[in-house]
Amino acid sequence: MKLGYLGPAGTYSEEAAYNYDPDAEMVPFASIPTVVSAVENREIDQCVVPIENSLHGAITDVLDFLVRTDSIAIAGELAVPIDHCLMVKPGTKIDDLKVVYSHPQSLGQSRIYLESTLGHAQAIASLSNAQAVIDMQESEEVAGAIAPGRAAEIYGAEIIAEAIQDNPNNYTRFVVLDQTDRPPTGRDMTSVAFQFSEDEPGLLYKALGVLTENSINMIKIESRPTGEKLGRYTFLIDMELHRSDPVGRETIEKLREMSSWFKVFGSYPRMDELPIRS
Amino acid sequence: MKLGYLGPAGTYSEEAAYNYDPDAEMVPFASIPTVVSAVENREIDQCVVPIENSLHGAITDVLDFLVRTDSIAIAGELAVPIDHCLMVKPGTKIDDLKVVYSHPQSLGQSRIYLESTLGHAQAIASLSNAQAVIDMQESEEVAGAIAPGRAAEIYGAEIIAEAIQDNPNNYTRFVVLDQTDRPPTGRDMTSVAFQFSEDEPGLLYKALGVLTENSINMIKIESRPTGEKLGRYTFLIDMELHRSDPVGRETIEKLREMSSWFKVFGSYPRMDELPIRS
Repeated sequence: MKLGYLGPAGTYSEEAAYNYDPDAEMVPFASIPTVVSAVENREIDQCVVPIENSLHGAITDVLDFLVRTDSIAIAGELAVPIDHCLMVKPGTKIDDLKVVYSHPQSLGQSRIYLESTLGHAQAIASLSNAQAVIDMQESEEVAGAIAPGRAAEIYGAEIIAEAIQDNPNNYTRFVVLDQTDRPPTGRDMTSVAFQFSEDEPGLLYKALGVLTENSINMIKIESRPTGEKLGRYTFLIDMELHRSDPVGRETIEKLREMSSWFKVFGSYPRMDELPIRS
Repeated sequence: MKLGYLGPAGTYSEEAAYNYDPDAEMVPFASIPTVVSAVENREIDQCVVPIENSLHGAITDVLDFLVRTDSIAIAGELAVPIDHCLMVKPGTKIDDLKVVYSHPQSLGQSRIYLESTLGHAQAIASLSNAQAVIDMQESEEVAGAIAPGRAAEIYGAEIIAEAIQDNPNNYTRFVVLDQTDRPPTGRDMTSVAFQFSEDEPGLLYKALGVLTENSINMIKIESRPTGEKLGRYTFLIDMELHRSDPVGRETIEKLREMSSWFKVFGSYPRMDELPIRS
C-alpha cells in the first residue's frame, strides 16, 4: 500500500502516516495539492493530511480542496500530539547554542521555552520542522532544531528537551483520503458540506434541527466562503453517523433537500479518545 | 483622529483606512498585534483591520485576538474590492518584463493572468503588496509589481493592467476597532462570541433558535478552537441587531444564559451593499 504524506520525512504528517499504517510504503510530497492529486490519479493508494489543529483551527487548504474535488473521499481520522523537541548534533550542550531552527509556527508555539531557556540563542525560520533539523546539521554556528521526536531518529540527532511547547493541549487531527470511504463499524463519523440558496436566513438552524431531531451528535461545524460573493458560505459539518445506516440515510436526505448544493465527503470509523502523550 | 492600519502605505489595509476616514492621520503598523495594542493603550484612537476575505475566509489572527482581549470593541465595518493592478516604472513595456513582484497571496490570485500574459516573466514573492512596488523600483531587472491601484499613486508607478485577479468576486471585509462600540442607528450589526460547557451537544442549535424566534438575521458563523482540547470551539456570530435595542438585549441575555463563556465584541452600523468596483 502506497501512502502519501506532506514531506519531508520527520514532519508530524509523516508521524501521522506512520501511526495510521506502519507497514505502508511512505511516499513524501511537497504540497497538499500534489499529495491529494496523487490519490485522485491513483499514483498512490491513500494519503494522510492535516485537517485541524487544536490551537490554530482548520487547515483551510484541505477543506477547500475537499469542497472542489469529486473524486476523493475521507476514509479515516486520527489525532497526533504535537510535542516539540529540542534536538542537536550528538554531544552539543544547551548553553552553547547560538541559533535554533524551526518552522515559524513551531517557534511561535515554543515562545515561553525560547525566552526562558534559549534566550542566548537566535531563532531562525526553516521551511518545515524536518528541514530545521537539516539546517541545524548544516549550520556553521552551534545550532539546535525544534522538531518532532521522530525527526531525531530519522536524521540521527540527539533530543535534549521534550514537550517544550507553551500549550500542552496541542494536537493535530489528520484525515485519510482514499478513492472510497469505509463501511459501517457501529461507531462512525460522516463529514458533509452544503450551501443554501441566497436570501433564506434561518436555514442553518433548520439544518441543525434535523440532527437534533434524530439525536445525532454534531462534532464540528466550519464555514468557508463560496467564492461567489462576500457573505455566502459553504458549511462543513462532522456528525456521528454512517451514511448507509437508516438514520444516516434519512438525515442526509433531509439535509440534501434543504440545500442548494450538498456533498458527502465520506463515512469512516470515528477515532478513539485523544492518544496519550508518550 | 489617529487611525492605525497594517502598513506600509499602499496596502489594501491603507485603502480601507482611507475609505473609512480620509481626513484621519494615518499611522502604519508592522503587524496586527501591534496595531491593536496601540488602540488598547491609547497610542492611537482607532484602527482598521481585515477580518474576512470573500475567497480565503476569516483572518483568524484577528478573531483570536478579539476573543482574548477585554479592552477593545468593534465599532464599524467596511468592504474593499481587491483589484490587483500590474504596475511598472513609467514607460516600461509589458513584453520587456523579466520579473514580477507581489505578495504570495496576490500572485496566487492572479495565476491565470500570470500564465497567459506574463508567461515570459518570473514571479517573485515580496513581503507585502506595497513592498512589491518598492522591490520593483529597486530591481536591477526590468520589473513589474502586482499591487492595489493606490500603491501606484503613492510610489509613482504606472499602471499598465487593471483587475488582473482570476476571480472578480474578491472583496475583503475590514472592521474598525475602538475602545467603545457605537450607539444604535436603526440598521446595526452585533458581533458576539460564546462557548458551551462540555458534553452538551445540541446547544448550538438551541442558540441559533434564539435568533430564529426573534426573527434576527444571522450574517455569519465561525468556529475557532478554544485551545483547551481538540474538538472544543468558540463560536463567533455576526447578527443584525443592536445590543441596546429591546430585542437585542433579550437575545443577548438568552445567549449569555446558555453559554459557559460569552462576550459581545460590539454593536456598530451595518455596512451598505458591497461597493461598486471603479
